Amino acid sequence: MAERVSVCEVGPRDGLQIAKGQMPTGIKVRWIEALAAAGVPEIEVGSFVPARLIPQMADTGEIVRAAIRIPNLTVIALVPNLRGAQTAYEAGAHAISVPVSVSEGHSRANLNRTPNEQIAEVARIVGWVREQPRRMKVLAGCSTAFGCSIDGVVPMAKTVHVAAALAEAGADEVILADTVGYAHPAQIKATVRAVRAAIGSKLTGLHLHDTFGLGLANAYAGLEEGIRKFDAALAGLGGCPYAPGASGNIVTEDLVYMLENMGFETGIDLARLLAARAVLHEGLPDEPLYGQVARAGIPRTYRAAA
Amino acid sequence: MAERVSVCEVGPRDGLQIAKGQMPTGIKVRWIEALAAAGVPEIEVGSFVPARLIPQMADTGEIVRAAIRIPNLTVIALVPNLRGAQTAYEAGAHAISVPVSVSEGHSRANLNRTPNEQIAEVARIVGWVREQPRRMKVLAGCSTAFGCSIDGVVPMAKTVHVAAALAEAGADEVILADTVGYAHPAQIKATVRAVRAAIGSKLTGLHLHDTFGLGLANAYAGLEEGIRKFDAALAGLGGCPYAPGASGNIVTEDLVYMLENMGFETGIDLARLLAARAVLHEGLPDEPLYGQVARAGIPRTYRAAA
Repeated sequence: MAERVSVCEVGPRDGLQIAKGQMPTGIKVRWIEALAAAGVPEIEVGSFVPARLIPQMADTGEIVRAAIRIPNLTVIALVPNLRGAQTAYEAGAHAISVPVSVSEGHSRANLNRTPNEQIAEVARIVGWVREQPRRMKVLAGCSTAFGCSIDGVVPMAKTVHVAAALAEAGADEVILADTVGYAHPAQIKATVRAVRAAIGSKLTGLHLHDTFGLGLANAYAGLEEGIRKFDAALAGLGGCPYAPGASGNIVTEDLVYMLENMGFETGIDLARLLAARAVLHEGLPDEPLYGQVARAGIPRTYRAAA
Repeated sequence: MAERVSVCEVGPRDGLQIAKGQMPTGIKVRWIEALAAAGVPEIEVGSFVPARLIPQMADTGEIVRAAIRIPNLTVIALVPNLRGAQTAYEAGAHAISVPVSVSEGHSRANLNRTPNEQIAEVARIVGWVREQPRRMKVLAGCSTAFGCSIDGVVPMAKTVHVAAALAEAGADEVILADTVGYAHPAQIKATVRAVRAAIGSKLTGLHLHDTFGLGLANAYAGLEEGIRKFDAALAGLGGCPYAPGASGNIVTEDLVYMLENMGFETGIDLARLLAARAVLHEGLPDEPLYGQVARAGIPRTYRAAA
């Protein structure tokens, strides 16, 4: 039996928030349907943030309501605060992802709060969610866990501290995010070990960017340390509007190619995943689409050695 | 003391042989000088193959004679046979690299010989080189060691067999080449272990392509297994004219970025390495230049955590 690795597609959220164009709601839904049809088990479909800040996310309520009708799909929405969590709950999201910056500079730029204030907000969200009749998972994402383009180096002890505080605050899962792509494989290994020593299996995933080309090397380092959940974006879309220099997420297609070749089971059909790029291109015709597997085509040896 | 990792630039050979344009000899020499000035310790400067097959390499004799005048640079030439080895020796090359395909299909397409015939040729080359007054290293490169776009899957036992035969034939070093980029990290680990069990420290390096985006993940897997020598090409040039679907080598700039961030010492100045791209562009203005570090710029955290 192959071991399972869960791939969470974040393109509709992390990918679109920095895109130049506005993807029409109907195409967004078709894109999410195409991803789900390819077998993607989890999709971060949007974020509940003020439309004046990120207009690309203005239709997130409508998107969530459409996405939860798709069978076998976990629908995640990003929310910055309790109010967003309440809106996500009302829309029917299965899970919310709450960003908490490890670095002060990014925290101020992205959330206009200190890291400790945002940790307290996660505790409030968890408290409110637990009082609701329907279960909704709370994922906490440690942004700038491996470095920050505003503050520079982020000491590992700070990342461990924030991760531990989030576990303490009651988050169901903690995800370490390399928001600006500064991580290198040895740093991933050391940080995953240190965070796991602090919070055990509450550390579930990595969110990686490919800014300096190390995205899949970092994913592999995480795999070696037992991480079995990765965020990624179709065609490598992405970037953070409040993190200067951030560029795209790791490419979902290339990540799936690596995982399946290594003998892991993602449940994703690579050919159908590649086909979903056409819908993305239809919705954002001016956005460059990245990805090496898309460029080279699936080779005849795909999964042959697994 | 940081541990040393040796980066061998193969752009002037592997990069140019598939390029559409013809780089003028004078610019080639300036490019090699710029690479050496950035601290690149070894450069594969060209190949001694018939000019009618690969016209881009017609000036390799002249290039070798110019390159050996550059201080602190190991000058390597690729040679397919004894005659090429003799020409490289006369030109003054410090080392020769002899390709030996593990797969029959690539061997026929690239060398018009069987793998065993080419192993015998390596033995002849070693015999001849040992009779000469000047020392010239013989490196043997196992092409298609991780898969072949003609034959498909290459069983690991075949790669071990060819590597062992090359060590037996007297090659000073054996390098495993992922000619078409089919390798994945777990395969790199398993193959490096198996080949090292057979030939020990005669296995020195990896030659990796980034066809499916796994190049640096594969390099990291090799590092984890103790490999301390990697081929790479500035701006990710490269590909094999006799391996359909092959694309560029791993990007030297991104590899150096990863290694130095991880605390390894390459001896290469990353800013000066990036500057060498301008000379490459001058010589091949129509060739696309890849590389994530070049696109994003060197971040302020570079080497800060090492």
